[in-house]
Amino acid sequence: MSLKVAFQGERGAFSEQAGYAFFGDKMSAVPLPTFEDVFKYVKNGRVDFGIIPIENSLYGSIHQNYDLLRKYNVFIVGEVKLRIKHYLLANYGVKLSDVRKIYSHPQALAQCEDFLKKLRNVEIIPVYDTAGSAKMIKEKKILDGAAIAGKQAGIYYGLKILKAGIENHRKNFTRFLILSRKKIIAKENPKTSIIFVTKNIPGALYTALGVFARRRINLLKIESRPIIGQPWNYMFYLDFEGSVADKVCSDALRELNELANYYKFLGTYEKGREVG
Amino acid sequence: MSLKVAFQGERGAFSEQAGYAFFGDKMSAVPLPTFEDVFKYVKNGRVDFGIIPIENSLYGSIHQNYDLLRKYNVFIVGEVKLRIKHYLLANYGVKLSDVRKIYSHPQALAQCEDFLKKLRNVEIIPVYDTAGSAKMIKEKKILDGAAIAGKQAGIYYGLKILKAGIENHRKNFTRFLILSRKKIIAKENPKTSIIFVTKNIPGALYTALGVFARRRINLLKIESRPIIGQPWNYMFYLDFEGSVADKVCSDALRELNELANYYKFLGTYEKGREVG
Repeated sequence: MSLKVAFQGERGAFSEQAGYAFFGDKMSAVPLPTFEDVFKYVKNGRVDFGIIPIENSLYGSIHQNYDLLRKYNVFIVGEVKLRIKHYLLANYGVKLSDVRKIYSHPQALAQCEDFLKKLRNVEIIPVYDTAGSAKMIKEKKILDGAAIAGKQAGIYYGLKILKAGIENHRKNFTRFLILSRKKIIAKENPKTSIIFVTKNIPGALYTALGVFARRRINLLKIESRPIIGQPWNYMFYLDFEGSVADKVCSDALRELNELANYYKFLGTYEKGREVG
Repeated sequence: MSLKVAFQGERGAFSEQAGYAFFGDKMSAVPLPTFEDVFKYVKNGRVDFGIIPIENSLYGSIHQNYDLLRKYNVFIVGEVKLRIKHYLLANYGVKLSDVRKIYSHPQALAQCEDFLKKLRNVEIIPVYDTAGSAKMIKEKKILDGAAIAGKQAGIYYGLKILKAGIENHRKNFTRFLILSRKKIIAKENPKTSIIFVTKNIPGALYTALGVFARRRINLLKIESRPIIGQPWNYMFYLDFEGSVADKVCSDALRELNELANYYKFLGTYEKGREVG
């Protein structure tokens, strides 16, 4: 049985790699042009699951996906923390000394700056996508150039690894979320994500967090996003340890719901392992 | 006497417009290529002040500038909340019915989608910058096209307003911060910005916010950013009402400093008015 899993980007993208780390060989990759398409496909049942990046350990949150989690009624049912390891990829037969041009997404190029600085007589060319740069050197049969992308892109486009692990920072992880139209409450090592808006009174956020602190529930992340049409007011996205199926957490959420002007449950899912 | 004020972007940018709203005619505009250049120029005393966007009321925080506030030792000494009003600008002699091409930054084009949808036989062309699109139609003497940019761009490049206020959302504000190498503590209507990192123990954020809640200090914004090299740990940027010169606030900050692993004072400045 295969599971259709939607992600944004070209085949070979880091999102696809994170998907394989989570689903294994059961995954059938469904690449889509935009993040919003991923949410739509999950919502409409055109795929079994979606996978989206939510946060990078160097660059922070991917806000568009926070906003889409509020907009679409889908549930978070899993998490993957993928080590972002960059590879210099080329067509077979190309040696490192042949390389005169290196193509990749500007962020990937920046993440490999230390490696790139050591090269002589090489032109750095920004393109729209990491996996897209691998696709391009393959399709155009480029023999004097290389691409910087993830391992999955090398596998998918049949490219040779000229050099592995060329990123500056080893502690570069992207956290991905697995989305489903059905609520699935994880039992193992659970964490829970919610959205809430406090009443507009002094101390409201402190009071809201007290709901968790008094029960010794450990907060993992808080993220604020603007409320459209109400400048300088914010909604909060909260991740904490525990499951809605546990009484202590469900009590906390009931109390928060009473305090809040807006509340949305996003999911209870197993905390992601670090992979890749 | 003129004040040199650095900002990122082309002449006529929204940052420049916000600068004039704050400094008036005393301002002498210093356009620079990047946000980091603005911080460097302020730090090195090559300009009197810098102005940077920190947050938009529809799209949220500009994270790069949050990170630069931590990296550079400069102080926040003022704030402006600029209403983002988009204008359709063209060379003199061009009528709305002549326009076949409209140029602007993709975000500005998205913000004017409702207006653009009503036009017939017009090609929408994304360019790198709003003020840059105004500059281009002026320099290239384009007579069948128009640019979408702010009022300041129209003034600077001597363009005619074909249509004013073409943005979808009227409650679209960008909040700008004024930077100085010297600490200047505002007396009128003060707010204060700090950065802190809590100890890595459950309830640490709640305890930190309690420092303010117990003193009835009103929090205005909390923003979390990743700590480089420590995946899934965060630093917090906090804005609150009050001045470091007031005993109640300085007591709170002293207590927070004792609780925290890292603490940085960014500034006490007058709350910005909404302008433009």
